Amino acid sequence: MTKTPVALTLNAGSSSLKFALYDISGTPVELASGLVDSIGSTPRLKADFGAAAPSLKRDLTAAEARDHVSALNTALSELRQKFPNAKASVVGHRVVHGGPVYAEPVEITAEVLEELRRFSPFAPIHQPHNLAGVEAAMAAFPDALQVACFDTAFHRSHPKVNDVFALPREYYDKGVRRYGFHGLSYDYISGELKRLAPLVHDGRVIVAHLGNGASMCGMIGGHSIASTMGFTALDGLPMGTRTGQIDPGVIFYLVQQEGMSIDEVRQLFYSKSGLLGLSGLSNDMRTLEAAGTVEANEAIDYFVFRIRRELGGLAAALGGLDALVFCGGIGENSRLIRERVCEGMGWIGLELDRERNARNDTLISTEMSRARILVVPTNEELVIARAGTRLLESAA
Amino acid sequence: MTKTPVALTLNAGSSSLKFALYDISGTPVELASGLVDSIGSTPRLKADFGAAAPSLKRDLTAAEARDHVSALNTALSELRQKFPNAKASVVGHRVVHGGPVYAEPVEITAEVLEELRRFSPFAPIHQPHNLAGVEAAMAAFPDALQVACFDTAFHRSHPKVNDVFALPREYYDKGVRRYGFHGLSYDYISGELKRLAPLVHDGRVIVAHLGNGASMCGMIGGHSIASTMGFTALDGLPMGTRTGQIDPGVIFYLVQQEGMSIDEVRQLFYSKSGLLGLSGLSNDMRTLEAAGTVEANEAIDYFVFRIRRELGGLAAALGGLDALVFCGGIGENSRLIRERVCEGMGWIGLELDRERNARNDTLISTEMSRARILVVPTNEELVIARAGTRLLESAA
Repeated sequence: MTKTPVALTLNAGSSSLKFALYDISGTPVELASGLVDSIGSTPRLKADFGAAAPSLKRDLTAAEARDHVSALNTALSELRQKFPNAKASVVGHRVVHGGPVYAEPVEITAEVLEELRRFSPFAPIHQPHNLAGVEAAMAAFPDALQVACFDTAFHRSHPKVNDVFALPREYYDKGVRRYGFHGLSYDYISGELKRLAPLVHDGRVIVAHLGNGASMCGMIGGHSIASTMGFTALDGLPMGTRTGQIDPGVIFYLVQQEGMSIDEVRQLFYSKSGLLGLSGLSNDMRTLEAAGTVEANEAIDYFVFRIRRELGGLAAALGGLDALVFCGGIGENSRLIRERVCEGMGWIGLELDRERNARNDTLISTEMSRARILVVPTNEELVIARAGTRLLESAA
Repeated sequence: MTKTPVALTLNAGSSSLKFALYDISGTPVELASGLVDSIGSTPRLKADFGAAAPSLKRDLTAAEARDHVSALNTALSELRQKFPNAKASVVGHRVVHGGPVYAEPVEITAEVLEELRRFSPFAPIHQPHNLAGVEAAMAAFPDALQVACFDTAFHRSHPKVNDVFALPREYYDKGVRRYGFHGLSYDYISGELKRLAPLVHDGRVIVAHLGNGASMCGMIGGHSIASTMGFTALDGLPMGTRTGQIDPGVIFYLVQQEGMSIDEVRQLFYSKSGLLGLSGLSNDMRTLEAAGTVEANEAIDYFVFRIRRELGGLAAALGGLDALVFCGGIGENSRLIRERVCEGMGWIGLELDRERNARNDTLISTEMSRARILVVPTNEELVIARAGTRLLESAA
């Protein structure tokens, strides 16, 4: 019996592993998707197997997910059991950092893997986990094509003026640049816009990817021109637990005047700040919207305010604005955030239709709004599966 | 014979001391102004004495300006010689940091001086020099009123959402806030707008103070709403030798991956970056405009691009734009920078009149431009002299 060719996609975060399985006998069709989180502490598995089996939600033993490799093996044994007839032809990996080099997905050879390791200092928290996932998948599927899809790749179309910091020139050559992230999401949205609204796609578009990580991307003709994230995924918008934009002088102050170590400051900026820090309550926008405390409201105010400010800044980089697109967990689900971002933004051409917004329509601007406002659910896994399939075909 | 009451203004930078003398028998009228620079290395004195004496330009001996106190005494002996009939009733000091407290100029009592010392960790390079100047002036003029005018004070009208970083709340309470600087300049421009164009003054105005230090301020009704500078004078626009906005992750990278000390990074960001770093040539815009090298042009491109991006961001904070005002050495003198900042900014309502711009007119937008564009020379010393005089009168 012939086996069904499938693409497996893997997305390893600092303590989580997202996976999805696609039937690629034709255009990729999702078969299953899931997540192992709290790897190394109190791991849990959540998975959806479509029509093949009931969905699953269970606590894992420490041994089943003590690290990313064992978490992957646990997920794989579930997938193998539910899809005994599947054959992984390609494994697609979300890799956070493609450095200055990679503007496209790439087959992971030994040389490529070596090169990706050299970018680890740029993303010391995420890149090593991503590459551990690659190695584990290589061991599990020695015959499959392994493909890396980079969060930075979509932004390599930036003009240099958007990539550079005002540092001595040798730092740019060393790789200290504004890379931009969330590229898989922006790539997906760019494709969806082309399908849904080709004229909008061809114009000046700002996409707000608002999730626990959050950034914005200015595009012209579907290509990234500028982003709010820079060298790391810390800059730009405030996030669940990350500061976003902050005066670098704050670091000098905390280290030189307050006696913190640089590592303590890094932890503070990455894990204790953002919505969590400002609200003193939660990194989750749903919790903050429900809370109604002064502190939660100030956190929401700040989140909205910084989105608006970056919206103006990115519009300047694009020379004006034809459309604003919301995506990501908050962008796709929070009517309040969308409403507050667009409030009083007529000067930039945005006029929200409150009813459409309340209904979560795709088009949520008024008929008369000069620039369109859209809500487009993103799908990073599908971008990976498509890229994997494409490389598989071109390798055949 | 009655002596003429004068106000002396002092502005102590890290290695310079600016001073000016005003006749305050009526509305303040400038009598003299000057500068001692390269204090502690190869000091020079430049001074203009108006009608009283020929202007002066001479190298000083090391002993005449080995520190700010001796530099002040050298300047004072020149002033006393040229204006024997003047009596310093008030000495006004530019003090960089007024902390979260001071929103107005203040008489410097022993208690105030003590409080200002507690803000030194926020501005470790500038505040101690400012306060050394205060003490020297107290010793030289024990009978004069000593007044502090703060670079931060004008911005204390910011809504909290513009003052806060997305850090845990205790840091805001500790004073880690977006203070904003160049407040004396913005205060002056606000007053000039009220005089020159009251309707513009009452609207939504962005002022670009572009000098060796550079920042922008968004005002409504003449009051500061938002600024590009934050906790320190490092954030926001790139400057002569300072980075401006930079991903905080760059600091973690340079310290943790490249092995630089935090102090080396601070030096790099403050003294070797900005226009100087990008051009590899000079921190002086005039030199860069004349150079025409690829590197000099990239530095200019970046400077212009970041101004445009902040212009869009500040307009979002104001809810649109009624006028853009240029001031500072570059803003008042560089036609090229003004032209390039305004190019293609019709979407935000700005249309530059090239001829007016080339003539350095006050109004440089076209008649049809929805938002006005102005060039207004700034005068920080006069703001200090006026504040000193005001406090002197209210103390009388």
